Amino acid sequence: MANYQAPIDDIQFLLHDWLNISEHYQKYGYEDAADKDLINAIIEEGAKFAQDVLAPLNQSGDEQGCQIDGHEVTTPNGFKEAYQQYCDNGWPALTSEPEFGGQGLPYSLSTVIGEMVSSANMAWGMYPGLSQGVIEALAAHGSEEQKARFLPYLVSGQWTGTMCLTEPHCGSDLGILRTKAVPSDDNRYKISGTKIFISAGEHDLTENIVHLVLARLPDAPEGTRGISLFIVPKFNVDENGVTDQRNPVFCGSIEHKMGIKASATAVLNFDEAEGFLVGEPNKGLNYMFTMMNAARLGTAQQGQALSESSYQGALAYAKDRLQMRALSGAKAPDKAADPIIVHPDVRRMLLTQKAFAEGNRALAYYTAMLVDTELKATGERKEKALKELSFLTPICKAFMTETGHEATNLGMQVLGGHGYISEWGMEQYARDVRIAQIYEGTNGIQALDLLGRKVLMDKLHTLRRVQKKMKYFIKDATQDKALRGMAGDLKTLIRKWFMLTLSIARKAGKNREEVGAAAFDYLMYSGYIYVGFVWLQLAYTARRLDPESQLAKSKLATCEFYFARILPRVKTHAANIKSGADNLMEVAEELF
Amino acid sequence: MANYQAPIDDIQFLLHDWLNISEHYQKYGYEDAADKDLINAIIEEGAKFAQDVLAPLNQSGDEQGCQIDGHEVTTPNGFKEAYQQYCDNGWPALTSEPEFGGQGLPYSLSTVIGEMVSSANMAWGMYPGLSQGVIEALAAHGSEEQKARFLPYLVSGQWTGTMCLTEPHCGSDLGILRTKAVPSDDNRYKISGTKIFISAGEHDLTENIVHLVLARLPDAPEGTRGISLFIVPKFNVDENGVTDQRNPVFCGSIEHKMGIKASATAVLNFDEAEGFLVGEPNKGLNYMFTMMNAARLGTAQQGQALSESSYQGALAYAKDRLQMRALSGAKAPDKAADPIIVHPDVRRMLLTQKAFAEGNRALAYYTAMLVDTELKATGERKEKALKELSFLTPICKAFMTETGHEATNLGMQVLGGHGYISEWGMEQYARDVRIAQIYEGTNGIQALDLLGRKVLMDKLHTLRRVQKKMKYFIKDATQDKALRGMAGDLKTLIRKWFMLTLSIARKAGKNREEVGAAAFDYLMYSGYIYVGFVWLQLAYTARRLDPESQLAKSKLATCEFYFARILPRVKTHAANIKSGADNLMEVAEELF
Repeated sequence: MANYQAPIDDIQFLLHDWLNISEHYQKYGYEDAADKDLINAIIEEGAKFAQDVLAPLNQSGDEQGCQIDGHEVTTPNGFKEAYQQYCDNGWPALTSEPEFGGQGLPYSLSTVIGEMVSSANMAWGMYPGLSQGVIEALAAHGSEEQKARFLPYLVSGQWTGTMCLTEPHCGSDLGILRTKAVPSDDNRYKISGTKIFISAGEHDLTENIVHLVLARLPDAPEGTRGISLFIVPKFNVDENGVTDQRNPVFCGSIEHKMGIKASATAVLNFDEAEGFLVGEPNKGLNYMFTMMNAARLGTAQQGQALSESSYQGALAYAKDRLQMRALSGAKAPDKAADPIIVHPDVRRMLLTQKAFAEGNRALAYYTAMLVDTELKATGERKEKALKELSFLTPICKAFMTETGHEATNLGMQVLGGHGYISEWGMEQYARDVRIAQIYEGTNGIQALDLLGRKVLMDKLHTLRRVQKKMKYFIKDATQDKALRGMAGDLKTLIRKWFMLTLSIARKAGKNREEVGAAAFDYLMYSGYIYVGFVWLQLAYTARRLDPESQLAKSKLATCEFYFARILPRVKTHAANIKSGADNLMEVAEELF
Repeated sequence: MANYQAPIDDIQFLLHDWLNISEHYQKYGYEDAADKDLINAIIEEGAKFAQDVLAPLNQSGDEQGCQIDGHEVTTPNGFKEAYQQYCDNGWPALTSEPEFGGQGLPYSLSTVIGEMVSSANMAWGMYPGLSQGVIEALAAHGSEEQKARFLPYLVSGQWTGTMCLTEPHCGSDLGILRTKAVPSDDNRYKISGTKIFISAGEHDLTENIVHLVLARLPDAPEGTRGISLFIVPKFNVDENGVTDQRNPVFCGSIEHKMGIKASATAVLNFDEAEGFLVGEPNKGLNYMFTMMNAARLGTAQQGQALSESSYQGALAYAKDRLQMRALSGAKAPDKAADPIIVHPDVRRMLLTQKAFAEGNRALAYYTAMLVDTELKATGERKEKALKELSFLTPICKAFMTETGHEATNLGMQVLGGHGYISEWGMEQYARDVRIAQIYEGTNGIQALDLLGRKVLMDKLHTLRRVQKKMKYFIKDATQDKALRGMAGDLKTLIRKWFMLTLSIARKAGKNREEVGAAAFDYLMYSGYIYVGFVWLQLAYTARRLDPESQLAKSKLATCEFYFARILPRVKTHAANIKSGADNLMEVAEELF
């Protein structure tokens, strides 16, 4: 029953009015993409594809799931045709280098398309989504020969790619992985081992699959410094493209999961499969991080994208469903009851969804612009963009997926009993998005990355710069009477954020466990502030255009809601952080 | 992979050491149940049945689901045999009156058994669970003839029952229900209409099903004051029991749902089905409340029960799974990595689960004792028990299911990727428990019931009495040095709770929407305080027995964790309440 409509107006508002994206593209060498009409045309084409081709396959894909027969995996009906159309339209090539058949458009545009794809059909989006990461990793770290041999096929979408990290005994802790790579002749290696949880690891959409595999060379150092990266194609490849020589990497099974059932999650058994070393030995994990950072932003966006889908479904229902009268008197006296959108608690749920769907979208686009900048800028500007991007990546990944889980569950709740029934499509959003808190580094890992690496090891440099940027804007916002109070609140919170960080740093000097004990709450605290900052900007921008417009009123109302009813969550997170590590670490294991 | 073990030690601690249940039974006319050994024997038998018979059917039941063929529904393999064994063991008769074949044991004992049943197999528990409510409603409101004709079969478990309230266009708002009842001859009625979401509405466990149906008589007043209650058996019944005359109430379909897939959720079409009026005309909704209040406590317990199951699964995994080293240095240097229970963020998740599983269990048992008292006491004592019970019922229903959802999702998160895989059983808990926030009155409805009816319309009488009770205990707790600080915190919070209530009452006088705008946060606020109070009592009781025992240390540590890291959530709820209704109600519908 869910009927996704791409929020084109909001997307265009963000890109053009808030982010001045044309100017940004001009500045960073994407002159071809700087034309507003072109940008809008691309978005509208993407919207059509998402709405008309992908969305109708979302529920049927969930019901049907993937099937395995021997080692071969069949995707749900229509998936292959949709993928073909996706390739025919040139979507896989959007952001890749023209040298390999790409269109050379900026990363941020693919973020917009990626959002619509995930909103319409998250499971389907996993197949082309993973390829993007492989393309980026090979473009950055592959040899010229490897690029020439693999990239054109990946860029055209003719082949897809995977990232093979996890093994049965290791997920977060890649240092203990066991898959082996033994040199054979001619710069090739024999890869043996078992990889699990491999998204798009086996399927029938393309003639070939390019696995990027982490493995250990003989005599490699222990831990993460002994991991190398290999290309292992499903079918071997020569200079003329794919051969019919099947490489011994076979899908042993596919997982039965809570959601994204139409995405094949494969167990892959490598039995002396032929592989090609990427870059230098023992640097595989660094190379893989190129791919993982992109994948983390993609995962963040899934959280946001499904908040949007769920909000749309819940909103339509809330306007339509008649149930009880408003406490302050009938609002639709001609009907048997009022539509449930009149009830404050239903509004609380809908506005929470809206605040996350739109606020997180804005944060995602802002972050994507940093990727554009980081890719094309030079010198200090590049360095600054990279720093802020590194700081924001774990926040986006964890905050948007935590709040995506919340938003999709609120969407179910708005529908009452119907929210629990598959036919309505709302429970699928909640099941699908749930994986996003887990994969590409659990949100606990993201939190450690933020607090440990991006804040404390960075000696608070980036945090300071981010806060400076926020405060700079707050001065502007204070000029707008309607925003003054919220701007003041945000300023206070930014100071508290800094003091809180200092207090953790101080405690962590004495006890390293304080970092882990504070990390999750610290990430959520940071996320709420960041999105508060973004909401203030959105309201400010919309009101500068025309304070009487529906857009400005909507952004202002949602911003006020966010500041009144979402942002106070930082109080609880601050209290948790201040409570310290002892209430966790002093509990003997046998007392659990 | 999940392997439920009934937490018998904790259950016995609560019943005997905390609640002095034998004395309570003695006092209220359950002398037969007052023997500690008997109580323990019943619990141990229940535990065995839950662990050995029901738990092994939980995952297979979810995979297989219910099947419909024509109008007939087949439950998953093993369900029928398990039900037969349940009846053979006499469980359905546990708390019913001896007059109808019951064992006359107290309600609170069935709560303990009910928890274990839900923990082991929530979907299976729906079949006998609904019958209990039907038995209670008929015992309270049925005629002598109706009781004689139906109760013995329901009490023995030979038949099951349902409650038929919801229709396609009405769930929360029963005032607009349309099912009709037309008088025929001989005190009988012809019932016509469609009921949806009927749990256990059709199945193959028993030879007959007794539907309790809400319907309108001709010329009944509009709204909730025109609803009557009818008994509609699947097979007609005469003085000799079930006949082979099939009543025209047919299952049209069963729902495909997010979870509890082994519980048949039926669409029932009544086509002039023969029914018997219960009690007086137009008083059906009042009668149904007898059943609904019991069902709400049962639903609350599902939230608690699945927190327990999920905690057990997550804890076992966290002790076993090796991944990374503790930040403060290796804890298992002989192994490839440390078990993940050493990591603070994993401990945060496990302790949150533990705090809810055990704290909510205690609150559930305490509430069940109020039911015992309310049933058997007289005069002021009965009245007081009823008042507190009415106050606590919506809190239990919403708080335990909200936190049950949180706890089961944390359980998944502890397992990382494996948490998302069906085989591990953790995602099923999250899917199954999700319905509990919705059915038996959504949690939004519970919140309105608490704040509107049980607090404001009650003029804060019960709230005051509850707070007095809490403060009385706080004096004792202050004697224990280890608890003094927490007792002081709780005292402060109780005062804030009261002030917050007054401020809502004041605002609601001017604007009724303030009630709805505050309700959900108010309920959660109240729930956190109640469970904080309970945790303090548990720590106090265990320490009085022996402060050096493992039990006392475990309760104290969890209580400290609760006060440090869970209770601060009230700060956010208070801020939301104080923010008032305007940020919800002033948003024009077109701005959503």
